[in-house]
Amino acid sequence: MSGLDILGFVAALLTTLCWLPQAFRTIRTKDTKSLSLATQSAFTLGVGLWLIYGIVAGNAPIIFANSVTFVLVALILAMKLRYG
Amino acid sequence: MSGLDILGFVAALLTTLCWLPQAFRTIRTKDTKSLSLATQSAFTLGVGLWLIYGIVAGNAPIIFANSVTFVLVALILAMKLRYG
Repeated sequence: MSGLDILGFVAALLTTLCWLPQAFRTIRTKDTKSLSLATQSAFTLGVGLWLIYGIVAGNAPIIFANSVTFVLVALILAMKLRYG
Repeated sequence: MSGLDILGFVAALLTTLCWLPQAFRTIRTKDTKSLSLATQSAFTLGVGLWLIYGIVAGNAPIIFANSVTFVLVALILAMKLRYG
């Protein structure tokens, strides 16, 4: 792995796993008032398209990072739709 | 542009511009209560690392997408730190 690969790996870990605390917080508090529905919807759709992109391009890191992110942000979107 | 390029372009537009409604909502309401500070901090750091990755790799789409995203998510993080 080059230094650049490691940088990309750390960046991908952060932008993927960062959604865990938001998901846990929202599960615990059921409070989604400050979250923008437009942002959450567009972000979930965008991450879903990145996942399809990764599958079509056969790019394993893109598939892996966006699968994990998609599950977390879709869960947050579902709670936003449920709790308002 | 191939179909795959267009898919990546639409995905990048969505995961970048999606932060606009959250930024506007938070500016308007000053309400950041439901936002996770850990998520917002880790996401901003991760996007910043993606930006450095793009600069080092000389990849214009990564630089462009992550510059715009970084400005928006750093603004949301600053409001979270300010309004609590």
